[in-house]
Amino acid sequence: MPAQQTVKLPSGDEYPLTGLGLWKVPKDSCAELVYTSLKLGYRLLDGAADYGNEEESGQGLSRAIQEGVVERKDVTVVSKLWNTDHTSEHVEDACRRSLQDWGVDYFDVYYIHMPISLKYVDPKVRYPPGWSYDGTPNGQLILEDSPYHKTWEAMEQLVDLGLVRNIAISNMPGGMIMDLMRYARIKPAVLQVELHPYHSQNNLVNLARAFDIHVTAYSSFGPTSWIGISDKVVAKCESLFTHKTISNIAKTHNVTSAQVTLRWATQRGISVIPKSSSEKRLKENLDNESFDLTHEEIAEIDELDRGLRFADPAAADPRLAVYA
Amino acid sequence: MPAQQTVKLPSGDEYPLTGLGLWKVPKDSCAELVYTSLKLGYRLLDGAADYGNEEESGQGLSRAIQEGVVERKDVTVVSKLWNTDHTSEHVEDACRRSLQDWGVDYFDVYYIHMPISLKYVDPKVRYPPGWSYDGTPNGQLILEDSPYHKTWEAMEQLVDLGLVRNIAISNMPGGMIMDLMRYARIKPAVLQVELHPYHSQNNLVNLARAFDIHVTAYSSFGPTSWIGISDKVVAKCESLFTHKTISNIAKTHNVTSAQVTLRWATQRGISVIPKSSSEKRLKENLDNESFDLTHEEIAEIDELDRGLRFADPAAADPRLAVYA
Repeated sequence: MPAQQTVKLPSGDEYPLTGLGLWKVPKDSCAELVYTSLKLGYRLLDGAADYGNEEESGQGLSRAIQEGVVERKDVTVVSKLWNTDHTSEHVEDACRRSLQDWGVDYFDVYYIHMPISLKYVDPKVRYPPGWSYDGTPNGQLILEDSPYHKTWEAMEQLVDLGLVRNIAISNMPGGMIMDLMRYARIKPAVLQVELHPYHSQNNLVNLARAFDIHVTAYSSFGPTSWIGISDKVVAKCESLFTHKTISNIAKTHNVTSAQVTLRWATQRGISVIPKSSSEKRLKENLDNESFDLTHEEIAEIDELDRGLRFADPAAADPRLAVYA
Repeated sequence: MPAQQTVKLPSGDEYPLTGLGLWKVPKDSCAELVYTSLKLGYRLLDGAADYGNEEESGQGLSRAIQEGVVERKDVTVVSKLWNTDHTSEHVEDACRRSLQDWGVDYFDVYYIHMPISLKYVDPKVRYPPGWSYDGTPNGQLILEDSPYHKTWEAMEQLVDLGLVRNIAISNMPGGMIMDLMRYARIKPAVLQVELHPYHSQNNLVNLARAFDIHVTAYSSFGPTSWIGISDKVVAKCESLFTHKTISNIAKTHNVTSAQVTLRWATQRGISVIPKSSSEKRLKENLDNESFDLTHEEIAEIDELDRGLRFADPAAADPRLAVYA
């Protein structure tokens, strides 16, 4: 099992370039998937309260620790604060709930999932809470008057309390990040955003680098994760797995198209968090760091950029056009 | 002289759909231009400290008032807080300086020019201050640690003091506006952004409407204003004045391409602030409200949208990628 590359976060913590994403992993296979991944060498588990599988993820982690596959300190365990828990009074409770579900006493990285604050939902009523609608036939979302800087203060307190080692941001437009950098007492360590060859986010990556924020890409495979969710955008592009540019490069290196797509990010120091239910593909994904693309190949893939965004909350409500 | 259409801002103030933009108006012709415009019927003067012509704009306004062309209360006088004056201690001084230059005792609308906070520059050293570089050969911009919510608080105090009737925002990405709406005691009345057929900003306009913020478009003529400034983007598109779609529609209505381009915005309730040094074109621009486009014509122009942005501060510094 090859040692994976890591980057050093400002806190001094090591953070892997390749991890396992837990979005859309079904509850009933989640513990097994996490356990298998750790056995294969994964050391970054990217979870979130909203994914609805933190308890099962924690079971997989506990089993691997109990069997001596890993020690807690060698795994980067990640969770995310959901939109309905942005007010100061709810941030710590939400974090403690996720910690309890995972069965750990600290998170390595804890994100604000989105820069969107929605009305609180009591976990006894619904968990994970999802989106807060007002219950009318037209289903209007209820925003909560909690500004981002107040939520960030509460996140900083989680670090003070020792519940979280690094706090982080996700789905943020550049202007909000620049503003956050003006007031943050503890700076964000990681920015997680949609990033793939159809949406290479060069300006955002450059901004993050200028502010010393590490970037983690989600939806590295582009349309593949969004079939059945953002079909209108999916219809605008070809699968990256069959795209000629990618598959020709894959052939040259005798690797898969998925590996090329991941390597296009990791080779430039951007972390990726693919998931797969197949052990073979889990291995391949982790192995993306075992070969190097040429500058020309990276440039060829860069040419595919079309600013195509699959994850856009504006589709749900015009007020949520955070990227407009 | 036809009565111009106005929209009512949340404060109750009337705000014209068509106004005069003062960006890039040379000092030596500015007073005359403002005076002429008021005689032609313009009632919205869109200035800014950064334009470097507020004193001359004020001279034109004073002359028109002295000659009985207009009364102060009938003109919407606009200024903008510059990037180097974002800290709480400088906002009021900057506003008072602009008021003094204009020779008025209140602004109808006062904007935060950009969501970018730069190091303070004493007006005695340089005015208008422009961008704050550190003086090294590579010319690094110096950001100021003043978060937007603090600047907004200082803007609200200008309303409390009676110096400003409506406070407003400009060049803001959607996420920052949504965040501002969470903490603003006095909500922004107007959002001014780049908006033209090559960058129609539909998501941002929908967000602004959902929050009851009126939209003012700048650079309505697209590339025309950016020759010599953003030539790389200008090279990507044809002039809107010669574009077939626009000129065919212009022919149908027996108007100019400029009028069609402006009407495409005003007919949808978006204000425009074109400028011209020619009296003939000033009249034509103001007259854009005298005809109506069909739904089909608006849809045809909508088809030109390519997300082309001419005003992007990311070109100056990667940290300023506010729209990324």
